[in-house]
Amino acid sequence: MSIYHHDTDTTIIAPATAAGGAVVVVRISGPDAIPIADKLFRGRTQLADAKGYTLHYGDIVYPTGEPLDDVIVALFRAPHSYTEEDSVEITIHGSEYITSELLRLAIGYGATMATPGEFTRRAFLAGKMDLSRAEAVADIIASDSQWSHNVARTQMRGKYSERLGVMRQSLLKLCSLLELELDFSEEDVEFANRSELRDMLKSIKSEVEQLRSSFALGNVLKNGVTVAIIGEPNVGKSTLLNALIEDDRAMVSDIAGTTRDTIEATTTIDGIRYRFVDTAGLRTTEDKLEQMGIDRTYRAIENAQIILHIAAADNPFFDKVSVDMQQKYIRVINKIDKLISTDNIDSDTTLMISAKEGIGIDALRTALRECTDTSHINSSSIVVTNMRHYAALERAAESIGMALTAMDNDLPSDLLSEDIRQTLHHLGEITGDITSDDILHTIFSTFCIGK
Amino acid sequence: MSIYHHDTDTTIIAPATAAGGAVVVVRISGPDAIPIADKLFRGRTQLADAKGYTLHYGDIVYPTGEPLDDVIVALFRAPHSYTEEDSVEITIHGSEYITSELLRLAIGYGATMATPGEFTRRAFLAGKMDLSRAEAVADIIASDSQWSHNVARTQMRGKYSERLGVMRQSLLKLCSLLELELDFSEEDVEFANRSELRDMLKSIKSEVEQLRSSFALGNVLKNGVTVAIIGEPNVGKSTLLNALIEDDRAMVSDIAGTTRDTIEATTTIDGIRYRFVDTAGLRTTEDKLEQMGIDRTYRAIENAQIILHIAAADNPFFDKVSVDMQQKYIRVINKIDKLISTDNIDSDTTLMISAKEGIGIDALRTALRECTDTSHINSSSIVVTNMRHYAALERAAESIGMALTAMDNDLPSDLLSEDIRQTLHHLGEITGDITSDDILHTIFSTFCIGK
Repeated sequence: MSIYHHDTDTTIIAPATAAGGAVVVVRISGPDAIPIADKLFRGRTQLADAKGYTLHYGDIVYPTGEPLDDVIVALFRAPHSYTEEDSVEITIHGSEYITSELLRLAIGYGATMATPGEFTRRAFLAGKMDLSRAEAVADIIASDSQWSHNVARTQMRGKYSERLGVMRQSLLKLCSLLELELDFSEEDVEFANRSELRDMLKSIKSEVEQLRSSFALGNVLKNGVTVAIIGEPNVGKSTLLNALIEDDRAMVSDIAGTTRDTIEATTTIDGIRYRFVDTAGLRTTEDKLEQMGIDRTYRAIENAQIILHIAAADNPFFDKVSVDMQQKYIRVINKIDKLISTDNIDSDTTLMISAKEGIGIDALRTALRECTDTSHINSSSIVVTNMRHYAALERAAESIGMALTAMDNDLPSDLLSEDIRQTLHHLGEITGDITSDDILHTIFSTFCIGK
Repeated sequence: MSIYHHDTDTTIIAPATAAGGAVVVVRISGPDAIPIADKLFRGRTQLADAKGYTLHYGDIVYPTGEPLDDVIVALFRAPHSYTEEDSVEITIHGSEYITSELLRLAIGYGATMATPGEFTRRAFLAGKMDLSRAEAVADIIASDSQWSHNVARTQMRGKYSERLGVMRQSLLKLCSLLELELDFSEEDVEFANRSELRDMLKSIKSEVEQLRSSFALGNVLKNGVTVAIIGEPNVGKSTLLNALIEDDRAMVSDIAGTTRDTIEATTTIDGIRYRFVDTAGLRTTEDKLEQMGIDRTYRAIENAQIILHIAAADNPFFDKVSVDMQQKYIRVINKIDKLISTDNIDSDTTLMISAKEGIGIDALRTALRECTDTSHINSSSIVVTNMRHYAALERAAESIGMALTAMDNDLPSDLLSEDIRQTLHHLGEITGDITSDDILHTIFSTFCIGK
């Protein structure tokens, strides 16, 4: 893994928490983390003399000795820290001013500002975690439902890496056998039984394809299920939306800073996140900014996994809607208290609700949840949620397919071996056994600062 | 201080950091903080057996044993914690989902959700800090410049409370002497020398008035100096604004979540925060929301401490502007490279700049800074920044004035004593020696959750 540029000489600093809370935690990591912290900090003990996994109360002071803030310092000694380097986490009062001053002072003492994801990048480069586990750290942070959390956590704990590792081991063994044949090629021996080899490749191919096909569900678990609510004006779309999200709204209001895009509302049903796009705001406009918002809404509907079509009981008819093969379609008649006759209504395919009275909402939630089939997975199943992994798996499946074709056509072992090496390469890209500084940069730059 | 309802039986929980960062810190405080944390946490040691000021790595687990997240737990034992209670701070991955799940689990084990400021309220009720120091904690967090930070810090460290304490001691002594006289009233003695008494009251009155009058500056230091930029279209107001805030903008962009109201831009000059209100957006509109924004801008100009009037060199004339007696007024001629003649321009009262070329910007910054006179205070001066304190000081000054009038008119000692008791009461309101649950509620409800 030493092909990467690993800048272990520098000591990096960044806030690890968002601004705007009661406290802010500033993280310092690297060879000079403790000496720099000792210059910043005046407490009862020198941090240089303190053990790892201890807390220290004192002041952050200017070089003049004037105090900036009273703080708690958490001390971690290499390799028992997130980065496996000496690390210090300083909990300060959550002020923008104190944060900037602390960063400024530390930078004056030789620390450099961390780039996004640099702490996790260091953990990866120190060999603490492979790339797919490092990426899962970002997914864990972004996860907003039970399923997205479970999937990211399974990945972070290395289950996915293990499975890829087992496949790579098998492929490496095949390669060695094939390459042994090449060394003895004059003697025309076959170290690798062709029929066993084919079975093994087929089994790995099926496993790769299974992972690859889990991405459709994985993407939904990670990003949520988009539900477009469509229907004529005044059928009660907004009332329904409020009825659907009510519980959830109350829960998230306890936590600051969670407000999302205004045209969307989200709720969690049985561990899956649903994002509702209300199409009420769709109208012709000459305002450029508003038009951009509307275009985004249209794209959201096109990409929605579920179309929720609402009509009101006083006019219980549905216009024709073009629904994609991949999309689920649910018909709902609202305001059932106003319903005069159930003639012409197929109650098997149409849900009857009263959003205002809260009637039928649970049934609707169940219907939405049933659109996402998670019956074949459990909390420790491996589900691919990362576009980069999906692409690598697709390339791996292709190479392994070529290897199988090569076998079917009795092509020479060196060609076969090359196809298997390609497969190994693509699987290795996922875990970071094979990658480049550029790829690392792309991956970690999507992280937040301080992670 | 035991007149307040101090609910020491409950254990409270809340996130102490804002959502949206790499990590989130969840704080638990109260008698069951450690037992609850032990139920949540599975590490190498039981927290119940661990010393204070230690860190512990492990998992937050569900009652089933299934892990939710791997975390670092910081342990504080009473009275060596922020609240002086047993406390635990859990650093989790910064996900909304993990945060809610952790809160949900802890609440299931008997913790209750903390109300805003409840941790600091507990510190106050435990006698760790008085009310003005507790309020300074919120001010420290909100401070965004060197001065606002210094003033809040001086207050938090108790300098202000000390000074109020000294005044209250003197007044209490006066009261005792006067009340002693009342006990011996039949004998017509004077334990308190009237002339010394008057001098002492006068000296305290002058000190109270000094504190009260520091509020004008204190309010500016705390909230920033508002500068309204006015002038015809195309004189370069926006370019000037960009030139003025450039440095600062670069600095704050490193810290997430600091974006302010869009019609304002702020910069710090020599430790003082300046808030610029650009009047460019002022136009007649029928949009209600936009009108509300415009009304706010007009109010900002009326309340601005400084009016910055810009003209361009190709038309270097200034319309008449009505300026309040309290307001400073600065004239600036921009685009000096286009200036044809300096006739009719009083260069003593008009600054000549080129916002585009960056000429004269430093001089303008100096001029702005000179509008705020801080020459008579230093970093440890006591400056009143709190509206509530200002009101209490005003009432105290009034009572003490009445006491002096009572003396001048030779009114009986019991009336005099009553006026001094009133003064004591009002000064005591500031430090919280005298206050009520209602006042406490009002104060702490403006805090953020988790502090």
